[in-house]
Amino acid sequence: MPIRVVGFDGDDTLWHSETHFEVTQIAFRDLLRRHVPDVDADRRLAEMEMKNLSVYGYGVKSFTLSMLETAIELTEARIPASDLEVILGWGKKMLLEPTKLLEGVETTLREVSQNYDLFLITKGDLFDQEGKLARSGLGELFLGVDVVSEKDTDTYRAIFERRGIQPKEFVMVGNSLRSDIVPVVELGGRAVHIPYQVTWHHEHVPEDSLPKSGWHRIEKMSELPALLVSIDQKG
Amino acid sequence: MPIRVVGFDGDDTLWHSETHFEVTQIAFRDLLRRHVPDVDADRRLAEMEMKNLSVYGYGVKSFTLSMLETAIELTEARIPASDLEVILGWGKKMLLEPTKLLEGVETTLREVSQNYDLFLITKGDLFDQEGKLARSGLGELFLGVDVVSEKDTDTYRAIFERRGIQPKEFVMVGNSLRSDIVPVVELGGRAVHIPYQVTWHHEHVPEDSLPKSGWHRIEKMSELPALLVSIDQKG
Repeated sequence: MPIRVVGFDGDDTLWHSETHFEVTQIAFRDLLRRHVPDVDADRRLAEMEMKNLSVYGYGVKSFTLSMLETAIELTEARIPASDLEVILGWGKKMLLEPTKLLEGVETTLREVSQNYDLFLITKGDLFDQEGKLARSGLGELFLGVDVVSEKDTDTYRAIFERRGIQPKEFVMVGNSLRSDIVPVVELGGRAVHIPYQVTWHHEHVPEDSLPKSGWHRIEKMSELPALLVSIDQKG
Repeated sequence: MPIRVVGFDGDDTLWHSETHFEVTQIAFRDLLRRHVPDVDADRRLAEMEMKNLSVYGYGVKSFTLSMLETAIELTEARIPASDLEVILGWGKKMLLEPTKLLEGVETTLREVSQNYDLFLITKGDLFDQEGKLARSGLGELFLGVDVVSEKDTDTYRAIFERRGIQPKEFVMVGNSLRSDIVPVVELGGRAVHIPYQVTWHHEHVPEDSLPKSGWHRIEKMSELPALLVSIDQKG
């Protein structure tokens, strides 16, 4: 069945996201070091994020709340409020950051949209993701946008049903093996992995649990149009 | 045209929400009073929420971040981190609160779902709203769920288009004149207002800017089935 629909992940596939988290996390580590020099702030923050995931979900606001809680806990509440105010400021700065597109994204999406229906399927905070899309200038290229709280087989199944998409005519493009590749291939769709320069620890997948076929890996977005043609030719 | 689709708001229409905010806000006021006895904490928090709305959007996480910022600002950063930790805890408590349905909601929704297609159209934080719906036990009654960042005419127009709904066959049920009644009536749909015991300041609408017709007001959810029948009879 020929490809009719292409789904795109947002964060770290179309626009930079993880790098903003990394930059903030370095500043967080430096700030904490002034109060508790011997502590592994990165590890403790990562643990806090995982602990809070079921309460807060994903996104910058959740990350900010976890930074605050980690800072208070690690300093045994000795950190001054002025430092916590600085952390609040980092969260706002991340939320207001201009959407910085990855290389080749705009050209490729315009090209691909001539031949396929495009959907944005992205995880995270609704308000933040809608803001990023609006600031990206790419909004008009997508036939629909789904901001979801988790990207698993249930999520993709529901989207296919709601949008009248057959898995076999669908290709998902994203940087996360866990969220963009594995569940889609499991449902009989195809997927294209474009690794980002940094992967969030939570999104790591052991190589031996990856599907044997049904997906491809490319280095950069600009290789996508040719790959889609080649997938279609092989049927 | 007979009614075919009924949309329901979530917070303070199906389940209690604003009361949780009120309870937390009283605790916030008491906590702040210990540090700055003469300050109007409620007004300052409301101003902070409005200022932050374009950055954070709606929801408990946004509210928590605004409480923290207000507390730091009003105390000129003299508030100890242990008190800020308490505020963080209130936010988590709100997010984990069991979904407490309003009176008559479950019976009415089961009844109405026999004759109409039900959709949940709710504003706020995606992760939090999905959690509330899951804990409510009402999930199976809805044909679809839309968590949106703002409920204006553009939002409703997009939902109508995506779901193939004619405004004339649609009735929206909710507690907010601003979000549930005015935009729907403006698009040619009908609406039912069920006031909640408390209205968030941001949702107030001056009475003279309300549509003259196209909407009804009932006291409680259990009056809805009879009202829908009567609307249908009058055409």
